[in-house]
Amino acid sequence: MTIARFIYDNPLKNTDLYFAAKFMSHDPVAFVEFKRKKYLVVDVLEFGRAKKQAHVDKVLLASDYKNNVEIRKGNPPDVANIMDAIFKKLGAKILEVPGSFPLSLAEKFRAKKYKLVIAPSPFFPEKSKKGAREKSMMVEVQKNTFKLIALVEKTLVKTRISGNKLLFKGKTVTSEFLKELVQIEAIRLGYDLKEGLIIACGDDAIDPHCVGSGPIRPFKSIVVDIFGSSQKSLLWGDATRTFCRGKATPELKKLYSTVLQGQEMAIKSIRHGVNGRIVHEKVLKFFDSHGYKTGLLNGRHQGFIHGTGHGIGLDIHELPPFIAAKDCILEAGNVTSVEPGLYYKGIGGVRIEDLVYVTKNGCEILAGYPKKLEIL
Amino acid sequence: MTIARFIYDNPLKNTDLYFAAKFMSHDPVAFVEFKRKKYLVVDVLEFGRAKKQAHVDKVLLASDYKNNVEIRKGNPPDVANIMDAIFKKLGAKILEVPGSFPLSLAEKFRAKKYKLVIAPSPFFPEKSKKGAREKSMMVEVQKNTFKLIALVEKTLVKTRISGNKLLFKGKTVTSEFLKELVQIEAIRLGYDLKEGLIIACGDDAIDPHCVGSGPIRPFKSIVVDIFGSSQKSLLWGDATRTFCRGKATPELKKLYSTVLQGQEMAIKSIRHGVNGRIVHEKVLKFFDSHGYKTGLLNGRHQGFIHGTGHGIGLDIHELPPFIAAKDCILEAGNVTSVEPGLYYKGIGGVRIEDLVYVTKNGCEILAGYPKKLEIL
Repeated sequence: MTIARFIYDNPLKNTDLYFAAKFMSHDPVAFVEFKRKKYLVVDVLEFGRAKKQAHVDKVLLASDYKNNVEIRKGNPPDVANIMDAIFKKLGAKILEVPGSFPLSLAEKFRAKKYKLVIAPSPFFPEKSKKGAREKSMMVEVQKNTFKLIALVEKTLVKTRISGNKLLFKGKTVTSEFLKELVQIEAIRLGYDLKEGLIIACGDDAIDPHCVGSGPIRPFKSIVVDIFGSSQKSLLWGDATRTFCRGKATPELKKLYSTVLQGQEMAIKSIRHGVNGRIVHEKVLKFFDSHGYKTGLLNGRHQGFIHGTGHGIGLDIHELPPFIAAKDCILEAGNVTSVEPGLYYKGIGGVRIEDLVYVTKNGCEILAGYPKKLEIL
Repeated sequence: MTIARFIYDNPLKNTDLYFAAKFMSHDPVAFVEFKRKKYLVVDVLEFGRAKKQAHVDKVLLASDYKNNVEIRKGNPPDVANIMDAIFKKLGAKILEVPGSFPLSLAEKFRAKKYKLVIAPSPFFPEKSKKGAREKSMMVEVQKNTFKLIALVEKTLVKTRISGNKLLFKGKTVTSEFLKELVQIEAIRLGYDLKEGLIIACGDDAIDPHCVGSGPIRPFKSIVVDIFGSSQKSLLWGDATRTFCRGKATPELKKLYSTVLQGQEMAIKSIRHGVNGRIVHEKVLKFFDSHGYKTGLLNGRHQGFIHGTGHGIGLDIHELPPFIAAKDCILEAGNVTSVEPGLYYKGIGGVRIEDLVYVTKNGCEILAGYPKKLEIL
């Protein structure tokens, strides 16, 4: 057949390209798979490095493929013309592209009489099945995630409670202060906090996407959610622990132990062949049966207002797998977060998150760290 | 008319969304402009924050817009169904989308009988025309860029030359060591080095995209290229200086002064109405006339192997403007880098980069920093 599998994107934004060619670049590149051979098409700036680093059969230099019409106009050839020249040379007439393929480029190829076929998602199903090597690299990065959580915990241990504030070496402890400590340590660990981090306390903690700001309060829940990628492997880690400096209220303690039980229940349910939606609904029902309702409460969405877990790998959100309101059959080799949470104004926010590796008969927690609310 | 301008993307990856709605999120959101009103469609997790932060006329909650077919199947509605319900309610039948619009989503809307029109690029032409406020915010972030370059320079000043190495407090100075210093200081400045940084010496410096590794050598060119965004304004800075610790060879000195003259020539040529291609060709010809040829030399692309400048703003590469081999008329309010470079194996790599703000009669350099090769 004459079908070429084709991606054109920036590897920084579309990790399928890195997965396919093991080549990272700040500028867009083209990847083609045709008759079992892999090609990478790059600019002159990337050509030398691509020839050394890319795991493909051939690296092509874009400027070697020219189109007479464009040259006559005095402008360099555009992507569609370069790729047209390459596809003509290869003999490809049908292009299988990812759903994210840019519409404007698609129209240009259609105008050149190519047939475009949208590939089923994910473009590389094998990307979500981690082998032993990827698994051990994800354990490494997750260990660093927990080192950073440990740093926050150890710092909280050393604080002194003073009224409604925490003092560390005489200074008020803020979310910003703790985040800076984590960011500096992350640099030393080669751990890229590309999308920031969450250290959120009190009312901030009841909004799962609020990154937190201002003073950290005693006797309130503090959600510490750290997610970053290894500079070496580019794989992501992701973990959350919830702490309380000083004695927690009975309501917060009960909330914490319910979330913890929900997480344990989810972890026990995960194995090859299970539907992520069923796992998620089980946790949701468990919370509900303990009086923790999810939905609009005093005009605010409260309760278990997010999914139980998302796949992770070269992207922080790399689906499948997916443990949420949507059908998704988990498979051996998947790595997914398991992160139930409950959020109520007045009580606080609690989330506990680990990464697990799905196996035939269950799942294994990657790295791991104690789960304890109070720091007394 | 019934045309709705429509973007569906992740604001972290597509800053047009942030530009349009002043809302940042880690998950995809939909932006619609219809009959002069702006709408943002978000998930329940972002709803509260979006209502507070987004600069739009109305924030819509995705789950309020449901499709009976999907609900009967037990699955939550997908983006196309949610947006279909919203467009029906608004009365929109023609969708104007950016060229980057995902093909699979485009096909779903076409199947629902919408007419899709690809908007000319850029989607928001006003994005590339910076006003006084944006300009002053870009001066701020560029000042921080130069603070980081100054840190590298000051550290190099304090080194001791020992054979073919540099020592700082008795330790060998490496690219990694200098980068860590910069990364830690960047955190203190609220300066996000999201895409890394370049500190490249010797053979590393002759590859403009090589980030550098290993010992920094005396008597060789050291390219220090720092680019990052302000955590507050999300706007980018970008600057390059080239240093040499110890006496430079006469060849390197001549290379440096030629690049510097090329940069000054480019800056003098930039004004509203000028074609970026003409500016670029002028620099290329100047280099050529001084014996610095560009092209394949001993099987390697050498000389002036990249463009003279790229637009910058909410993205590090935000086009237009563009000063390279392609036609692009510069306009007042554009911010562009001016960064000619010359790269020759045996002599070294030199690049000098500033950002300029294009005005009616010329351009203004944002922030600024001395240009001096040797650190003696």
